Amino acid sequence: MPIRALVWGENIHERENAVVREIYPHGMHNAIANALRQNADITAETATLEEPEHGLPEARLDETDVLLWWGHKAHGEVTDAVVERVAHRVWEGMGLIVLHSGHFSKIFKRVMGTPCSLKWREAGERERLWVINRNHPIAAGLGECVEVPMTEMYGEPFTVPEPDETVFISWYQGGEVFRSGMTWRRGAGRVFYLSPGHETYPIYHQPEIGQILRNAVAWAHNPLPRWKNIDDAPNVPTEKAPEKIESRGPHLHAPGEAGFR
Amino acid sequence: MPIRALVWGENIHERENAVVREIYPHGMHNAIANALRQNADITAETATLEEPEHGLPEARLDETDVLLWWGHKAHGEVTDAVVERVAHRVWEGMGLIVLHSGHFSKIFKRVMGTPCSLKWREAGERERLWVINRNHPIAAGLGECVEVPMTEMYGEPFTVPEPDETVFISWYQGGEVFRSGMTWRRGAGRVFYLSPGHETYPIYHQPEIGQILRNAVAWAHNPLPRWKNIDDAPNVPTEKAPEKIESRGPHLHAPGEAGFR
Amino acid sequence: MPIRALVWGENIHERENAVVREIYPHGMHNAIANALRQNADITAETATLEEPEHGLPEARLDETDVLLWWGHKAHGEVTDAVVERVAHRVWEGMGLIVLHSGHFSKIFKRVMGTPCSLKWREAGERERLWVINRNHPIAAGLGECVEVPMTEMYGEPFTVPEPDETVFISWYQGGEVFRSGMTWRRGAGRVFYLSPGHETYPIYHQPEIGQILRNAVAWAHNPLPRWKNIDDAPNVPTEKAPEKIESRGPHLHAPGEAGFR
Amino acid sequence: MPIRALVWGENIHERENAVVREIYPHGMHNAIANALRQNADITAETATLEEPEHGLPEARLDETDVLLWWGHKAHGEVTDAVVERVAHRVWEGMGLIVLHSGHFSKIFKRVMGTPCSLKWREAGERERLWVINRNHPIAAGLGECVEVPMTEMYGEPFTVPEPDETVFISWYQGGEVFRSGMTWRRGAGRVFYLSPGHETYPIYHQPEIGQILRNAVAWAHNPLPRWKNIDDAPNVPTEKAPEKIESRGPHLHAPGEAGFR
Repeated sequence: MPIRALVWGENIHERENAVVREIYPHGMHNAIANALRQNADITAETATLEEPEHGLPEARLDETDVLLWWGHKAHGEVTDAVVERVAHRVWEGMGLIVLHSGHFSKIFKRVMGTPCSLKWREAGERERLWVINRNHPIAAGLGECVEVPMTEMYGEPFTVPEPDETVFISWYQGGEVFRSGMTWRRGAGRVFYLSPGHETYPIYHQPEIGQILRNAVAWAHNPLPRWKNIDDAPNVPTEKAPEKIESRGPHLHAPGEAGFR
Repeated sequence: MPIRALVWGENIHERENAVVREIYPHGMHNAIANALRQNADITAETATLEEPEHGLPEARLDETDVLLWWGHKAHGEVTDAVVERVAHRVWEGMGLIVLHSGHFSKIFKRVMGTPCSLKWREAGERERLWVINRNHPIAAGLGECVEVPMTEMYGEPFTVPEPDETVFISWYQGGEVFRSGMTWRRGAGRVFYLSPGHETYPIYHQPEIGQILRNAVAWAHNPLPRWKNIDDAPNVPTEKAPEKIESRGPHLHAPGEAGFR
Repeated sequence: MPIRALVWGENIHERENAVVREIYPHGMHNAIANALRQNADITAETATLEEPEHGLPEARLDETDVLLWWGHKAHGEVTDAVVERVAHRVWEGMGLIVLHSGHFSKIFKRVMGTPCSLKWREAGERERLWVINRNHPIAAGLGECVEVPMTEMYGEPFTVPEPDETVFISWYQGGEVFRSGMTWRRGAGRVFYLSPGHETYPIYHQPEIGQILRNAVAWAHNPLPRWKNIDDAPNVPTEKAPEKIESRGPHLHAPGEAGFR
Repeated sequence: MPIRALVWGENIHERENAVVREIYPHGMHNAIANALRQNADITAETATLEEPEHGLPEARLDETDVLLWWGHKAHGEVTDAVVERVAHRVWEGMGLIVLHSGHFSKIFKRVMGTPCSLKWREAGERERLWVINRNHPIAAGLGECVEVPMTEMYGEPFTVPEPDETVFISWYQGGEVFRSGMTWRRGAGRVFYLSPGHETYPIYHQPEIGQILRNAVAWAHNPLPRWKNIDDAPNVPTEKAPEKIESRGPHLHAPGEAGFR
């Protein structure tokens, strides 16, 4: 069964800005989805901000294995209810790939628990993504680095939690560095952040970036059964303890009573 | 200069429940603060839910090096504004020590980015905290394990992010295990979770638990200057790039314009 | 193409000790290999200490995707040359699964860089492996814990480096705990340690342990091309620097000269 | 009581190479020790390869809190016995700071368990160490980056285990990046690697590098009692189990017998 990817796009710059529209006439989300479809084992659909529930109703997330997220200008317009819904699906096992300016999206900040801030400069300079861990699945098929001819600089400090793995580190012509590819786990869900992808440059048309995206979708997919009710805190009654014990001492909760939250 | 600790207590069980009141007649927060004061290099004050702004106005957090958090029944009554304020201070460098049922507090879930769920049983059983990393500062002065005669069981899976360090793992008479002491970093702030501390047992009167709390406060204290504006995303103008570059290609932002959030 | 697993067994207890021989008449290595073969996507062969080069000549390691290691009594008899050869293959991408008393094997200590010591007791007590991360590939198909009716106790502190992931933690009837399943990465190779497997109990005949072993082989397999010459330190001549620079200042090395090691 | 630092220097280039001798007329080890002595809470001594036991007899290591290591040309001349002795002291709690070309020293490879290889170029280019984690103790007092006017390039991939913390990442004029400051824990010992320090440039005379070295010594010092016998694997007899159990089933070891190694 193919991996079901869903590409979420804010879809504002593409409509309002002539430069972006020329590069991505069908929107960045469609360019990304097309890149994913070059792997026959991935099906890719899209969703955008302006759709009802931002295109992310519960039923659709139920049928999504990996969600990719590109947003920039309108992070604040994404409703908190949808953010919580997506976070919950990540904890249950859906993969999440956050792209470029998505570092400041509500969903990324929600699952990181940190500011996710950074430095930036839009000067069309050269970027080189160095592969730190050559045999990481997300680096499959790449050379020792990927050169991006024109990019927006994202500079350290990038205030995210210490990652599980640093996959890419970027060099910029203007003198900065950035951890441009990192992984984390949140509940049953795998999270990957990839920094290149500024909307005024044709970065998602670059073959190596497409390769990274396909690799990342395959990596982020967790084929195990969904971890339902992962936020429950079940009581284990004394009589069902794995080892036989007898209850003693004072109690706060009456038998069978639910815990406080 | 001593480390300025602030112990936050929900202070409900102590007033409403006779069993808890007998063990902690001055409230759990005061018992914890007293344990901290046994180290002359720590000053300990308290704050509680019912105070204005829950006792955590901005000015007070400004003068706090390490915040300890015990809550259980009324997590939902803590206002979101105070939670965001505390999270911000953690990112700036304030230490945060979350105790027992605080695993489900808004602030802990906020900085973890995960459900923080677990299993539980209130049967007064025996717990043994095994020291995983004997020379960790938080384990200073302990033996190879700490025995808690009567405890509430907290069982795995504990749905937190993979920790920076696992300091303690607990054994329970009823057959479960739990990672009872773990560390994480969030921005400039150090976070420690410690699980023993159920309100119907005199756990915070136990000398070894007091020792752990004092150790944890010393560990969580970051003496470096506060990282102000850690959630800013400053622009680095082209003319201020560390290496001389010339801007090229199309632009989204006019020169000097702030980034989107 | 199936994953090529190779099970290395010391094969001494099985020949010299009647109790062990009765449980594992064909040797523990064959019991383990048989458990692996229940997955049709794995081929499993065996190698033992007494074979020439301990059954691990270079050509054989070249055709091995994942190596499993069980040793106990004769760690010191494994030649250093074979240990270095195996370590090199791990760095190049071969998976390594170290079992039970293999914690003190030369190869495990070699890739960990720590003593790998622990506490132990052989009393036939009950062990319960709790699954920490339910959706980890190594835990696929398991319930919330695996009960081992009779086991050798392995107790903390287990002096290994902080793991990438803690997959299992064990509870013992006698009161101790142990991180019984952990992962690390070394170069391109994935390393997993699994503690149950004492030779005087039929643990490798237990279906859930077989399931864990099959899961671990699938997890440890890195399908990417072998990272040859991973221990080389190549010079990048000035004229081949990604950015054009001119050499300046004093030099230690003449142009084209190899670095010191 | 001050922290007792010991700076180990290979002390060959300084004697054999006129360029290096001019920069470090008293040897690099003495330049480093002098930088450390600017902190009154640190005492700094030196040891060199040519001394008996390389200046590292057991009695001296017993009185060392933090060892700094600079070697390059003669890694192979350090005896294995001294390497094992140093590794053992690290596990017991001595800090270890490995400098520049020490990435290929026996002791660093010993405690990492990986090749520790990298790319390099000696072109006197510019390096910029970016501070990833501004409030890490090792970064105390630094600005957002440290500029090294002339350096040897060290490039990724740097084949070390995933670090506990990435403190610095370097940018190079020629286009590469490098994780130039990382931490790990090995047993009770803290390990820090710092890459700048090529012998033909006056890098250890640079004030910010001195600041980093002093910070690192303070960070690496573990004041807790030495973890003696950390590589022992003690038996816990059945009658001394924390919980009362009765031994059952077959046994390999007679009561009181030592385990195999």
